[in-house]
Amino acid sequence: MLAELYFKRRPGCWKMLAVAVCMVLLAGLQAQDLQGHVSVILLGATGDLAKKYLWQGLFQLYLDEVGKGYSFSFHGAALTSTKQGQEFVAKVLESLSCPEDVAPERCAELRGRFQQRSQYRRLRTSEDYMALSKDIEAQLQHEGLREAGRIFYFSVPPFAYADIARSINSSCRPGPGAWLRVVLEKPFGHDRLSAQQLATELRSFFQEEEMYRVDHYLGKQAVAQILPFRDQNRKALDGLWNRHHVERVEIIMKETVDAEGRTGFYEEYGVIRDVLQNHLTEILTLVAMELPYNVSSSEAVLRHKLQAFQALRGLHKDSAVLGQYQAYSGQVRREQQKPDSFHSLTPTFAGILVHMDNLRWEGVPFILMSGKALDERVGYVRILFRNQAYCAQTETRWVADQSQCLPRQIVFYIGHGELGSPAVLVSRNLFRPFLPSGSWKEVEDRPGLRLFGRPLSDFYAYSPVREQDAYSVLISHIFHGRKDSFITTENLLASWAFWTPLLDSLAHEAPRLYPGGAENGHLLDFEFTGTQLRFSQQQPEQLVPGPGSAPSPSDFQVLQSKYRDSPLISAWPEELIAKLADDIEATAMRAVRRFGEFHLALSGGSSPVPLFQQLATRHYGFPWAHTHLWLGDERCVPLRDPESNFQGLQAHLLQHIRVPYYNVHPMPVHLHQRLCAEEDQGAQMYASEISALVTNSSFDLVLLGMGTDGHTASLFPQSPAGLEGPQPVVLTRSPSKPHQRMSLSLPLINRARKVAILVMGRMKREITLLVSRVGHEPKKWPISGVLPSSGQLVWYMDYEAFLG
Amino acid sequence: MLAELYFKRRPGCWKMLAVAVCMVLLAGLQAQDLQGHVSVILLGATGDLAKKYLWQGLFQLYLDEVGKGYSFSFHGAALTSTKQGQEFVAKVLESLSCPEDVAPERCAELRGRFQQRSQYRRLRTSEDYMALSKDIEAQLQHEGLREAGRIFYFSVPPFAYADIARSINSSCRPGPGAWLRVVLEKPFGHDRLSAQQLATELRSFFQEEEMYRVDHYLGKQAVAQILPFRDQNRKALDGLWNRHHVERVEIIMKETVDAEGRTGFYEEYGVIRDVLQNHLTEILTLVAMELPYNVSSSEAVLRHKLQAFQALRGLHKDSAVLGQYQAYSGQVRREQQKPDSFHSLTPTFAGILVHMDNLRWEGVPFILMSGKALDERVGYVRILFRNQAYCAQTETRWVADQSQCLPRQIVFYIGHGELGSPAVLVSRNLFRPFLPSGSWKEVEDRPGLRLFGRPLSDFYAYSPVREQDAYSVLISHIFHGRKDSFITTENLLASWAFWTPLLDSLAHEAPRLYPGGAENGHLLDFEFTGTQLRFSQQQPEQLVPGPGSAPSPSDFQVLQSKYRDSPLISAWPEELIAKLADDIEATAMRAVRRFGEFHLALSGGSSPVPLFQQLATRHYGFPWAHTHLWLGDERCVPLRDPESNFQGLQAHLLQHIRVPYYNVHPMPVHLHQRLCAEEDQGAQMYASEISALVTNSSFDLVLLGMGTDGHTASLFPQSPAGLEGPQPVVLTRSPSKPHQRMSLSLPLINRARKVAILVMGRMKREITLLVSRVGHEPKKWPISGVLPSSGQLVWYMDYEAFLG
Repeated sequence: MLAELYFKRRPGCWKMLAVAVCMVLLAGLQAQDLQGHVSVILLGATGDLAKKYLWQGLFQLYLDEVGKGYSFSFHGAALTSTKQGQEFVAKVLESLSCPEDVAPERCAELRGRFQQRSQYRRLRTSEDYMALSKDIEAQLQHEGLREAGRIFYFSVPPFAYADIARSINSSCRPGPGAWLRVVLEKPFGHDRLSAQQLATELRSFFQEEEMYRVDHYLGKQAVAQILPFRDQNRKALDGLWNRHHVERVEIIMKETVDAEGRTGFYEEYGVIRDVLQNHLTEILTLVAMELPYNVSSSEAVLRHKLQAFQALRGLHKDSAVLGQYQAYSGQVRREQQKPDSFHSLTPTFAGILVHMDNLRWEGVPFILMSGKALDERVGYVRILFRNQAYCAQTETRWVADQSQCLPRQIVFYIGHGELGSPAVLVSRNLFRPFLPSGSWKEVEDRPGLRLFGRPLSDFYAYSPVREQDAYSVLISHIFHGRKDSFITTENLLASWAFWTPLLDSLAHEAPRLYPGGAENGHLLDFEFTGTQLRFSQQQPEQLVPGPGSAPSPSDFQVLQSKYRDSPLISAWPEELIAKLADDIEATAMRAVRRFGEFHLALSGGSSPVPLFQQLATRHYGFPWAHTHLWLGDERCVPLRDPESNFQGLQAHLLQHIRVPYYNVHPMPVHLHQRLCAEEDQGAQMYASEISALVTNSSFDLVLLGMGTDGHTASLFPQSPAGLEGPQPVVLTRSPSKPHQRMSLSLPLINRARKVAILVMGRMKREITLLVSRVGHEPKKWPISGVLPSSGQLVWYMDYEAFLG
Repeated sequence: MLAELYFKRRPGCWKMLAVAVCMVLLAGLQAQDLQGHVSVILLGATGDLAKKYLWQGLFQLYLDEVGKGYSFSFHGAALTSTKQGQEFVAKVLESLSCPEDVAPERCAELRGRFQQRSQYRRLRTSEDYMALSKDIEAQLQHEGLREAGRIFYFSVPPFAYADIARSINSSCRPGPGAWLRVVLEKPFGHDRLSAQQLATELRSFFQEEEMYRVDHYLGKQAVAQILPFRDQNRKALDGLWNRHHVERVEIIMKETVDAEGRTGFYEEYGVIRDVLQNHLTEILTLVAMELPYNVSSSEAVLRHKLQAFQALRGLHKDSAVLGQYQAYSGQVRREQQKPDSFHSLTPTFAGILVHMDNLRWEGVPFILMSGKALDERVGYVRILFRNQAYCAQTETRWVADQSQCLPRQIVFYIGHGELGSPAVLVSRNLFRPFLPSGSWKEVEDRPGLRLFGRPLSDFYAYSPVREQDAYSVLISHIFHGRKDSFITTENLLASWAFWTPLLDSLAHEAPRLYPGGAENGHLLDFEFTGTQLRFSQQQPEQLVPGPGSAPSPSDFQVLQSKYRDSPLISAWPEELIAKLADDIEATAMRAVRRFGEFHLALSGGSSPVPLFQQLATRHYGFPWAHTHLWLGDERCVPLRDPESNFQGLQAHLLQHIRVPYYNVHPMPVHLHQRLCAEEDQGAQMYASEISALVTNSSFDLVLLGMGTDGHTASLFPQSPAGLEGPQPVVLTRSPSKPHQRMSLSLPLINRARKVAILVMGRMKREITLLVSRVGHEPKKWPISGVLPSSGQLVWYMDYEAFLG
């Protein structure tokens, strides 16, 4: 009769399984033991989660599996006294429900059998665990059963993990040939370090394959369908699932409730640790990962997931916007007995912009958002495709399933919201998706219902034939050893490695306050430019004291004056960089107009980085195709070394613009597998490259910096190389590491048509003052030797360097 | 009283001009001559254009300018006999209308004065022009007027240009100190060559600055407002007007009428020459060009326009979709007396995808579309901005001027359509635009009217205070010498240079037939992937016989077999390339997994180009960051030479992927400003680079081709270099130019772990057959020497090369 139930729920399996099942039915009770006995120990059996989901999940497991050759016993365990615990469990078991299609009297009968196999016991000491193990063994022996395995479900706070784990490991492992599975519930640490510590501790008790870390979102039906959907619709998605077609991916979980009653937990975690680091990140990897050939291979899925983590671009402060509902701090004060002056910085809302550095997803924004006290409760993943069509007729004539100009989207609707149930939605102008008809059915139209800007009828919409609770799904997956529905240690640490730097950088940020509910208006809308995220609206008022506001740069003007008898341009950093970039572009345009090309020598270090960014993102008319890029100096390290000046140029400028390969001239510091060996004549090679390509060896513009010791390029005080003499390019020695350098010489620099010296930051104040007073003393202060013989010299200094 | 009229129309000028105008009024008639006399000669004065627009435009010019110190005479001229012409002109003059705010009796008075200054004369021979010139001079002398200049308006067919131009040049130029302006109407040629010929001919009679080529779209108010709008809203647009923010630009001109009655002209021109090459291209340059600092400098505007042309990426067959309304061929048959079997290939509809190769616009699609017999008459330029926001509340709560998630667009509405008048529209969630209040006023809301998906109330919408006909605007600009409203010779030739290759490549394409009007449905919708355009819907039926259809590649399977005892993979070209790319990726993945890097040597020529494209656009998981790219051979030309193999690699692969600079290894054929000089030891350098970086000098994969003479890489028959011996890289000599080459040697090639030889095309059939039969004879057929000593050799041949 269990088999009957089984087939009612899986009518498609009738024929295939008929023979096997008949055998089971004929064999009777003994058949249950063919595959052995499974003991499930639910730790924290009297807790909320157990009461709400886990007992029901175990009952479902029993219903699903008991007809297939297993026998079960269920041990509720907790610290509660035996009597109280038994009463609690008895009450919970009495309330268990059967699937909709089971008649009440039949359900009572099934529940009765489950109750017979379930018991409560107190588990506190190592001895208790030993006793449990003995009892299980005795029962096995008594009933003549082979042991298949034991499941320990940790529904207990993390601080209790270690003791329990130790006891299980030492006193309660199953016999030889039987498996052990321990199921763990989040939080799995608070950041990378604590997660690592917890993981190390657990690994001292359990093998990796024994641990099942639950992220219950992976059991939600729409989430669990992402990979099968990608697999079963491979052909249609093959050309679409990439940066050429996807405009954005939104991974969203909105709540209407707030944190009241849970502020103890919430103060410690906040929305990023509570929702984004786990649930939304898992979904992100399911959407973004390369699809394995075999999606039912747990190992392949987990490997591809890890690869997806590796492709995530690091987050920075500007990748996030944070909010906190206004009542939150008051709730914390009340619940945590804080003084009236207390203001929490814990975010209850976060929007995050994630990018992936691979060819499939480069440039596609992944928007992760979650928050409490919002205007609606809903969760979804939405893949919006680019509109790459032009529709020749007027919009009023567009037909929903034909017009490629209407939005095209695929939505995995996790639940709640206007639709009220899990669903998979595919715009009708995309393709008709395949979903397994046994488990998904088409949703009937509900006129008037609009989702994501379109009426429901614009979508092929599917919802589960039978809605299943996430825990029931996961408990079944644990039983079947489907590890891809769980978080491996590697996966967990990769996720924390991704989130921890952001969490650290945001630790002292004041979140924007929001009233909660529909009142939020557009206050929490956010937008992005490149990788930067910000709220769309200005902060209306800030109730939590934020960081002090400095005078705005735009309050000041660019100053023009003289420094060492040459023009000086001084401003706040932002203006200074903008002005320098403008001047470089103007110089470039003039040079290209006159000579057809522009020869620019750049210096390394961190000062020019914002200049490179400015040039790359703001100067659309820059004649890059006609520009030659030279280095003013270089460290004697391989080109790909992070210390290399060229590497900085590559990362911050070259990869964003289009300079022909042959116009880029790195210094040859690495020849014949050696660094700056005299006999390799790298300096001479560079000099002859310059003399061959740059008319009269006279650069159109040389950009220099000034060190706190008065060095420039790689020309250092008290070191004669390059200060005079005929060699245009020289090897020099720096007082700081790496000592070996290659540099343009002073005489070559002074042949330039124009030299710009960029000096920024308070650290430069002293040398700026000093150099303003000295004459031509290049041996003491090489920078003082920079004076183009027939060109122009301009100093660019920010106020901090110039005024201190 | 003319001044009165003047001030009525320009109330803002009252104060500024009061003094000057009073002087004019006081000075009376003589004052009109202060700036001299202008003679306007309208050639083709009895034609349609003259009747419909030009006489009216001249009347408007008279009304606008006569009060400001000029006197005028207007000479209608044509081949028509004097009497008939006079009657015609008299009738046209009688029907001239005044601006709305002029009272009827006042208008009659003004018209009377204009009639007095206008006359018709027949102009046929050179003598007629001489006589005209004498008459003008006589009149000037008689009335004591100084000559300011002469305007000749060519409203005649192009074949008449030369004679008229010669006559004007020889017999009718104005006296010294006075200017000559000749106004020309399109068509200005039929393609690049004919346009060049016409331009050369005209330049033999006129100076460039004397010629005003009319594109009347530049006189349409919304079009004429594009540059001033960009200038006056510089601050708001500065950060927006670029590829980071613009999603697409649509430049559209839809007509409901068809070509009936004009098929003689239309058969010769078609929609691209009629509308896109001129009107839509001009608009494109106004939108796309870098904004000059001074937009009122004609010279700067024209220079920037030309720069915009230079940035246009070349069009190819796949940049266009073409259509023809079904009735067209029948109309041509009737009007042009063609036989029943005649089917025209002339397009009456075209959609074109344009891209610009500069940093401002790279990747932004510019969609140009025009057609006859469509569902509505409308013209517009629409700049749609990307949605880069996420709105935290549910869509039903979005407020139009606050939500950044609603469409953001700027539209220059040229006319007609739902709105019915020219307009400038800016979405309220963008910014409040500035438009000069004297000439533009806000449009009143019209509830129910939706434009571009949004209610009119979502836009700041402005329309002209006074609607002006394009010809009136342009005639005024001619008078004021505003050359930026006209097409210079350079501009014209740049436009033809852009369009002619496309027109040539489309000459024999059969356009898709469409029924016309609303019946078109989604038949003409088109969409793009990368730079490729295609109709969204499959062709339902083709009534014009199209090119014969070959068997579809997917009807065939990839064949695997043997060739010269090595594995052979054979397929249709598309499958073959896909298979080869898959195999290369698999090899790369294996190499990177095992060794951390992948060394790939590529060959040049045209065969690998589709392979490069396949790798660049389809292989998202390719481990480029760990791939080293080497050349199998190189021509002794500079790297940037179009003949260089490296240049092909750069254009088709490197610029689409992200290989670190240092992993790219061009052959050093160009050292010390010499090409492949023995003494520069380039081959040795390359060999030592290989030996330093490639373990055991054993490439992971070498991709080769096979020449029709059996050569491979740059190893040629009857030339011993590189076939054996210790040198890994050698200089060789090719029988074809450029003769000097550098090549990997056979021994080095044969050290590879894998060698793939790609052979494609019917041309290779013979050598394929021959080589299949020969043994190891590298001196006769170098390809026969390719046999990796411990690696694998695989042949990839398409069916044409293999089966012929």
